[in-house]
Amino acid sequence: MHVAIALYPRFTALDAVGPYTVFAFVPGWTVTFVAASAGPVTDDAGNLTLQATEAYGDRPAPDIVVVPGGPGTAEALADRALVDWIATAGRHARWTTSVCSGSFLLGAAGLLEGRRATSHWGWLDQLAAFGAIPVSERVVRDGDVVTAAGVSAGIDMALSLLGQAAGDRTAQAVQLAIEYDPQPPYRCGSPKNAPDGLPETALSLIR
Amino acid sequence: MHVAIALYPRFTALDAVGPYTVFAFVPGWTVTFVAASAGPVTDDAGNLTLQATEAYGDRPAPDIVVVPGGPGTAEALADRALVDWIATAGRHARWTTSVCSGSFLLGAAGLLEGRRATSHWGWLDQLAAFGAIPVSERVVRDGDVVTAAGVSAGIDMALSLLGQAAGDRTAQAVQLAIEYDPQPPYRCGSPKNAPDGLPETALSLIR
Repeated sequence: MHVAIALYPRFTALDAVGPYTVFAFVPGWTVTFVAASAGPVTDDAGNLTLQATEAYGDRPAPDIVVVPGGPGTAEALADRALVDWIATAGRHARWTTSVCSGSFLLGAAGLLEGRRATSHWGWLDQLAAFGAIPVSERVVRDGDVVTAAGVSAGIDMALSLLGQAAGDRTAQAVQLAIEYDPQPPYRCGSPKNAPDGLPETALSLIR
Repeated sequence: MHVAIALYPRFTALDAVGPYTVFAFVPGWTVTFVAASAGPVTDDAGNLTLQATEAYGDRPAPDIVVVPGGPGTAEALADRALVDWIATAGRHARWTTSVCSGSFLLGAAGLLEGRRATSHWGWLDQLAAFGAIPVSERVVRDGDVVTAAGVSAGIDMALSLLGQAAGDRTAQAVQLAIEYDPQPPYRCGSPKNAPDGLPETALSLIR
């Protein structure tokens, strides 16, 4: 299995590295980072730079496509090379996936028309502009398109897909290997359980 | 606040990028990656390369030190420049922290003598060799030394420290910004709740 994770300027690091770490643990699976060209790509906070290991043209038909989100999504929507790669790779891939606002790029590639999909809670409603049916769930699968909610949700998505692709036992072993037994210090990670006013404060941190 | 995350060859990506993403969201906080020299450092799976933004000497006194774990810890224990930096920076920092087997590097720097500390469940007992008192908890704080369990536990640790440094409201806003409302597909992320035989399978993935 080959997993290709798209990188573009001002992506959010955990969106990409959560699924990467899950998939990279599996024997026989390879994960690469693709971009316009191989080389450095810097994240939204400006201090994390990941190396893209190959260009889009080097990886036309991965088994799984992962598109992270981040503030850079806005400009990336106009990046034809990226959007065209998602569209082309998405025709061949077993699953085309996104984390956070990465779902907007799947939408721009025409993959969300009439499909149930999710995104970061702050932008979920805007998915309808791509013909998608916005769904407020952590991981949404509609056929071969799988979208995850904001940032950290990519870890849950990757483990879930791994279970389907390689069996529950392998996915469980990876979950234990990364000691994913989460104990968040607060109960406020979703707008459904956040106290009044916190969503506005959270959005101000993102903007 | 300045957070410095140490990188060394064959670190585990999520150990570093989990805390990075949490801290980088906070206005006025800066997170940098330090290594023997500024430049690329490749992870344990071999396909993720992060840029160290500065050398140890450039950052002698960060406010928070984060040391990730990974298979590379074994060789890193003999890296005097890294261990000396942890020891020196640890004398000045408000908190010196680790994720996963990164706690062994804190031990090599002499910071765990007589202290309660944790690590990845697979290697927890070995912390005693550094004079530490091994504790099977997700995040363990003993004075200014804070250690987290395996890989994904760094996210919980970072949010917890952020709450202490910047207040609960800011940490809650970050938790909501990264939509950290985890829904793991399985209940097996700790050996305490894993089915029989799974720890052995998980360890075989790591080795």
